[in-house]
Amino acid sequence: MQLRLDRPKLISLAAGFTDSESLPVSEAAEILNEVLKPGKRGQTALQYGSTAGDPALRKRTLERVEKLDGARTGYTPANVIITHGSQQLLYILTEALCDPGDIVLVEDPTYFVYLDILRSHGIRARGVRLTPDGMDLEHLDEVLGDLKRRGELKRVKMLYQITYFQNPTGWTSRYDRKAGTLELLRKYERAAGHPIYLLEDAAYRELRFAGDEMPSALAARKSRDRVLYAGTYSKPFATGARVGFGILPEPVLTAAVRIKGNHDFGTSNLLQHLLLRALETCKYETHVGKIQTRYRRKAQLMTAAIKSHFPGNVSWTEPRGGLYVWASAPPGKASGVKSKLFQTALARGVLYVPGELCYSDDPARRKPNRDMRISFGGAADGDIPIGIARLGTILRELCGS
Amino acid sequence: MQLRLDRPKLISLAAGFTDSESLPVSEAAEILNEVLKPGKRGQTALQYGSTAGDPALRKRTLERVEKLDGARTGYTPANVIITHGSQQLLYILTEALCDPGDIVLVEDPTYFVYLDILRSHGIRARGVRLTPDGMDLEHLDEVLGDLKRRGELKRVKMLYQITYFQNPTGWTSRYDRKAGTLELLRKYERAAGHPIYLLEDAAYRELRFAGDEMPSALAARKSRDRVLYAGTYSKPFATGARVGFGILPEPVLTAAVRIKGNHDFGTSNLLQHLLLRALETCKYETHVGKIQTRYRRKAQLMTAAIKSHFPGNVSWTEPRGGLYVWASAPPGKASGVKSKLFQTALARGVLYVPGELCYSDDPARRKPNRDMRISFGGAADGDIPIGIARLGTILRELCGS
Repeated sequence: MQLRLDRPKLISLAAGFTDSESLPVSEAAEILNEVLKPGKRGQTALQYGSTAGDPALRKRTLERVEKLDGARTGYTPANVIITHGSQQLLYILTEALCDPGDIVLVEDPTYFVYLDILRSHGIRARGVRLTPDGMDLEHLDEVLGDLKRRGELKRVKMLYQITYFQNPTGWTSRYDRKAGTLELLRKYERAAGHPIYLLEDAAYRELRFAGDEMPSALAARKSRDRVLYAGTYSKPFATGARVGFGILPEPVLTAAVRIKGNHDFGTSNLLQHLLLRALETCKYETHVGKIQTRYRRKAQLMTAAIKSHFPGNVSWTEPRGGLYVWASAPPGKASGVKSKLFQTALARGVLYVPGELCYSDDPARRKPNRDMRISFGGAADGDIPIGIARLGTILRELCGS
Repeated sequence: MQLRLDRPKLISLAAGFTDSESLPVSEAAEILNEVLKPGKRGQTALQYGSTAGDPALRKRTLERVEKLDGARTGYTPANVIITHGSQQLLYILTEALCDPGDIVLVEDPTYFVYLDILRSHGIRARGVRLTPDGMDLEHLDEVLGDLKRRGELKRVKMLYQITYFQNPTGWTSRYDRKAGTLELLRKYERAAGHPIYLLEDAAYRELRFAGDEMPSALAARKSRDRVLYAGTYSKPFATGARVGFGILPEPVLTAAVRIKGNHDFGTSNLLQHLLLRALETCKYETHVGKIQTRYRRKAQLMTAAIKSHFPGNVSWTEPRGGLYVWASAPPGKASGVKSKLFQTALARGVLYVPGELCYSDDPARRKPNRDMRISFGGAADGDIPIGIARLGTILRELCGS
């Protein structure tokens, strides 16, 4: 992000920025004018709230997830916590559940900032193979079995999964894979001696522009108390507003609220009221519809350009939502920070996220180093084909075809 | 806070709420209307920013602290980080500098939430006697000497001090005490084998309504690179807006920015732009003037009521700023959560913060248990004399006079 901010001529297909032009500027102004009316209401928005979040927003949040799931969760608003973006929730849950030396299972590849959260706490990440349909359950069983044999199951506290339009691959997990994951975790719980939670990061869920809605892991009612659901209003509405949330079972909720209190007492009430009114007035819903259309178009711009410019031996997947295309150079060709590909791209003014950053350090396999996360979210429409053309030229030069 | 929110008839003199009626509702509405104009500016406010914070706000922040100090710090805006309230900065700095088992020196008494941050990370707090003029330097020397003898100096990473209208006592540290503290820390650094930082929490600095401005520890130029300055715009402007900041030497700044990235990528841009424009348009300055006048009046309401209602053997200090009066029952009379005093007060509808919560667990002394933190910040004007009268009646009953 810093590079993008410093070098305006560079076309960044790296940053997970959302689309600037479609940000709800006038909607936010209208809502805040209403929220900041003289009197009690305006004062409440500018005063401290309670640490877990605004009660009305917690209620709406539960209702919204239940609407997306097409089913009741069986939870009440007391199971909801509001955070300063869902990133903060990931951080807090990791603090709440893990000690240094513990193990968190992650998708291979996964969200690179989450890997840094783990590293910074001395927590080990262990990768589980990811397929375009979700977790590779056979591999998950193998990994858990291996940890059990090595007496390390007691260090495994959770599995972290980005289930919708995953960062970095753009893939969405099928529901049965999530249910299967929960069953496998349950199977190994006795040997672990404690619950192994599934942290379902649904950050990109509402950025769907093709395919059908998919229930979250909360729909697995039998295993509901093992699911930690992390969602956000920032990406679908306004990233600058930073409002995320969690739907959590006891006692995880209580632990998370306590840590949240130590972080910041609670998310800015002003931001919470902005999102609450956006939801209540349907401005949120309307806006989500608009940006889905917009991202569909941006994704099409990108995939059309990829079809024209990338050599045939670079594989990639057509996205159905989210912000990313995941592309892989042919075997033997590196895409990492030190690679000729990345350095040439940088020199010619186009930036992607090297796939290697998205893989955990895992002695069980060599770290893949030929993938690229290419984002269509933040770049201007006109820049997308130019950036892809630049990258395509380099790929043709380096990878032939 | 939860109690206050749940039991409206209770008069809470406990919560560190700021005064609701004086919140800048119309000012915030006006600013946000301007910030959220269609086009680039509005988009920037609703988009991600950089992790360390908005460059213009970082610059203004440095200038503001230098204005309060009446002297240049010698720092640049690159030494400033913006956080989601200054509480988040305290958390991040503790994470950045301390490992489990480490020791942080704290004022005795100190801010109770900070004690919980330390506890939750397995960090030990060691109390240093506080006087109405600041740290007791002789005691600090003793404590450091004792830690040195016991080979524990290498575990001491910083000293945490709330230097203006302290929470809970309301006392302000004289500048020479801060300079003396820095000298003492420096004296023991060689034996420690690493820097021992002074974390100066200036959260209440701008809530001054009597006495003169006091330079911060940053004014001790020779020791500037040992000072971690934590400030906030939330308390002086709007607690619901949650914008705090740090002025930090390298390499602490870099470590803090990295951790901040893992927490939340950066504080909401919308909130940052609100504060930036408040500063640029002088609405901030004007508002600070207003609330200083208002808190002076609320403090007078409280001290007048205390004079009428408290028995003579309860000691207390006249506040010159901040939100709190610190009062002590006579020796032998307890004020803690389980005490008759606290329980009777609760039953009769008045709440204070028991002083015992503000003392660290310290084997070197018995934990004091006869103090009360009584806040005039959040209560309505009319409730202050009623709450104090209730409390005074109980004190006369229990402590005689």
